[in-house]
Amino acid sequence: MWIVQHTVTLAPRPRGVHLVTREIAAGVPELDRARLGIAHVFIRHTSASLTLNENASPDVRRDFEAWMNAAVPERFDWEHSLEGPDDMPAHVKASLMGAALAIPVRDGRLALGTWQGIYLCEHRDRGGGREVVVTLLAQD
Amino acid sequence: MWIVQHTVTLAPRPRGVHLVTREIAAGVPELDRARLGIAHVFIRHTSASLTLNENASPDVRRDFEAWMNAAVPERFDWEHSLEGPDDMPAHVKASLMGAALAIPVRDGRLALGTWQGIYLCEHRDRGGGREVVVTLLAQD
Amino acid sequence: MWIVQHTVTLAPRPRGVHLVTREIAAGVPELDRARLGIAHVFIRHTSASLTLNENASPDVRRDFEAWMNAAVPERFDWEHSLEGPDDMPAHVKASLMGAALAIPVRDGRLALGTWQGIYLCEHRDRGGGREVVVTLLAQD
Repeated sequence: MWIVQHTVTLAPRPRGVHLVTREIAAGVPELDRARLGIAHVFIRHTSASLTLNENASPDVRRDFEAWMNAAVPERFDWEHSLEGPDDMPAHVKASLMGAALAIPVRDGRLALGTWQGIYLCEHRDRGGGREVVVTLLAQD
Repeated sequence: MWIVQHTVTLAPRPRGVHLVTREIAAGVPELDRARLGIAHVFIRHTSASLTLNENASPDVRRDFEAWMNAAVPERFDWEHSLEGPDDMPAHVKASLMGAALAIPVRDGRLALGTWQGIYLCEHRDRGGGREVVVTLLAQD
Repeated sequence: MWIVQHTVTLAPRPRGVHLVTREIAAGVPELDRARLGIAHVFIRHTSASLTLNENASPDVRRDFEAWMNAAVPERFDWEHSLEGPDDMPAHVKASLMGAALAIPVRDGRLALGTWQGIYLCEHRDRGGGREVVVTLLAQD
């Protein structure tokens, strides 16, 4: 078994939900020779998150954003409001979705289901580039 | 250290929350000889999910389902509605609960707490058999 | 590659959200010599949870608790109410936040972002000491 780790900086995106499967896989060239393993993907931020969901319809991603805004509204009796109205909701959403994914690897590829893709959830209005650490534990 | 990976197809279940700990453990015969490790359990779908929770009372699982239906209602201004009223809520619920679990392994068993069991959350009215990939990283 | 596993019992905390990064890291002395790896942190309970979030402002943690209490209220048509009004909401919150974290390790440290810390979410009014299993997979 071997282990490699890479830092991938995702391109900045507007607030919303974005497919980043290819961008992440491209950051780990050793994936090709991983016959069996686990890829762990970790975002080093507290106002953006990672989840797996439907990789085909942009309307699913828009509905995700709409639901999150309804469930964690900017209008709430937040105590932590110094960094803007989008900040505290961003923290809560980040924990709801999670900072990390672990995905099985088989025959040099992420063993995702047909309809699964990696979503970057950008919870800030202007979050900037987001740093992701990808750790691959695998065997040839 | 060694690594094995199995695909387990869970029996189809109706919409709701179901205990599947035994069904999943039975799919990994090598668990017996894993003295120390991690078992990673991954569902290859975007409208069903996995979580850990109370393994004794069926009413907890019914309350889970009731709360999820209240928090992610079918009546919402969903844009993605082509696949039925249960589809888009299923996607959101799937990300709330998550597609994967990693569980410590010790002395040939999942090192779950006394009250912890693996829940399959079936978010579709008729989801069919669900495919789960179990990856075990361990040492004898 | 090597693997070690430790059980850490966290000091009892009142209901709410608490920073436990140092308490957890201190429970894994081998972290020092892990050049590259993954630390998996797993809580063996169904009414407390672990998440990563902002490590600086106590008001963020109070807002977390306030939002969770609004999203998963004690006043709901819960069927499972035998163990007190805080019990069933605690189960739902535990699955929303999650029982486990996996964190990349680099050069003998958890490779957290600058603002990330490990939150123990204590969902019960009086939860007592909470048992956490930390598994470190790493190489020197």
